[in-house]
Amino acid sequence: MTDKSAIDYFTEVGSVEAVNARTGTDTSPRLAEIMTSLVKHLHAFTKEVEITQDEWNAAIDFFTRTGHMCDEYRQEFILLSDVVGLSMLVDAINSRRPEGATENTVMGPFHLEGAPEYEMGANITLQGKGETCTFAGSVRDTQGNAIDGAKIDVWSDSEDGYYDVQQPDIQPLYNNRGVFRTGADGTYHFKGQKPVSYPIPDDGPVGQLLGHLGRHPNRPAHMHYIVSAPGFQTIVTHTFVDDDQYLTSDAVFGVKESLISTFEENPAGDTKFHAPFDFVLIAEKTA
Amino acid sequence: MTDKSAIDYFTEVGSVEAVNARTGTDTSPRLAEIMTSLVKHLHAFTKEVEITQDEWNAAIDFFTRTGHMCDEYRQEFILLSDVVGLSMLVDAINSRRPEGATENTVMGPFHLEGAPEYEMGANITLQGKGETCTFAGSVRDTQGNAIDGAKIDVWSDSEDGYYDVQQPDIQPLYNNRGVFRTGADGTYHFKGQKPVSYPIPDDGPVGQLLGHLGRHPNRPAHMHYIVSAPGFQTIVTHTFVDDDQYLTSDAVFGVKESLISTFEENPAGDTKFHAPFDFVLIAEKTA
Repeated sequence: MTDKSAIDYFTEVGSVEAVNARTGTDTSPRLAEIMTSLVKHLHAFTKEVEITQDEWNAAIDFFTRTGHMCDEYRQEFILLSDVVGLSMLVDAINSRRPEGATENTVMGPFHLEGAPEYEMGANITLQGKGETCTFAGSVRDTQGNAIDGAKIDVWSDSEDGYYDVQQPDIQPLYNNRGVFRTGADGTYHFKGQKPVSYPIPDDGPVGQLLGHLGRHPNRPAHMHYIVSAPGFQTIVTHTFVDDDQYLTSDAVFGVKESLISTFEENPAGDTKFHAPFDFVLIAEKTA
Repeated sequence: MTDKSAIDYFTEVGSVEAVNARTGTDTSPRLAEIMTSLVKHLHAFTKEVEITQDEWNAAIDFFTRTGHMCDEYRQEFILLSDVVGLSMLVDAINSRRPEGATENTVMGPFHLEGAPEYEMGANITLQGKGETCTFAGSVRDTQGNAIDGAKIDVWSDSEDGYYDVQQPDIQPLYNNRGVFRTGADGTYHFKGQKPVSYPIPDDGPVGQLLGHLGRHPNRPAHMHYIVSAPGFQTIVTHTFVDDDQYLTSDAVFGVKESLISTFEENPAGDTKFHAPFDFVLIAEKTA
């Protein structure tokens, strides 16, 4: 065999080189980089565990069923990415921040543009259900300076574990959603309900996979936030309820230790709980 | 942070450990082994090329379109596996043979059970088209002993690059298909047509990917064989036409150097070409 035959013809040992040598010279450099790395790692995986023909057949069937589960209301491939930690990994890679800055976590599929903007102190729980809670804190830069005019876009599920958009016939639109803007002191406070844990949709192939892996489909209770201000990097994150039973087993790996918020009993206040959380923003990346 | 928090909470550095620590203790050991390795390699890939959020979105969209392309007639995930060399790699891992034994290649989707069994010398080209060729050789063990009663199941495309099952209205069923059995001398010979190259289905997401990678969708011309005999390992393979333009760029990486067959002009014979190929079988694996 010549050197050329090692890439002209497929061999088990030379499988990666045989495939990657085919990429054309006019290919986008970024696509070539991605595919070269993907082929290398997928072949390494296949060789490491020596996938059998039956297992390969099962994988083809799994991906096909996952594809057939996807429609305009359901994205089973995102769920798959979520439960193997890839969604969180991509988010982590693309939102690295210095120590002290508020960390990102996944956006999730339930954000709505156009939620009503309220005065500080307003109650976003339109349905009047759930355990009442006051959310309060500040938005500051890494030097501790208050950020004036920071936009806080918040949303959560309701007491039965669904978002308003999942129950349009039961919940009013924008139930447990709202937008607030900080003043010169950078503080915020509003009323809502203590969020509750809920399962990701688990009646498809991904739910079956979780079952085979002995994993539950639940996410620990959390509030969603997008916090933004001119000149600062936008934060997409959650705060998590500190006593949630699923805090260390989030089905989608969304929990970061720095995002856990205490939900304190609040006997003197007008809500059952009080949940403080301070957001720290860093300067926007400049091109 | 305690050691426990390193797996309780997701971090970019500890992403693999965080995901794999979740696998339940009752999980099938083989499934756990496969998923542990898959997560390790997929996260390594994602970190190596630092997939952006837009690239992740594009990947979700690609897999979704690939899934939606699959139906009872079309298996786009198998095509995807084919064009990144995974189908051939799984075949290679599961059909390792000693030097001198005939190598495997992929089965492909066009085999039919129940093709007619013919006497040696018969012509399997029922349609009477294409360039005529005599296929001849022997079936032997690794010591060179003739194998009596070896079954040779052969199929190929027709002169326009389609298999009979793809053109039920134009080609008679079992066109370019047949089964032969060797006698005590282990030899075989039959007539057919010199196969031609053809593209894999490329009107879907996988064809688009090939296009972006600067790759063509063609397979070099080949005859399919399943060669089996009692006590011997069954061979699933092709022989490839030695002057095919796509021999070193098979879209599915099916070509192995040992499977290239000379197609000699055959002026004295009753067919235009003569294509010799000897099959060497090894003893069946014993449990």
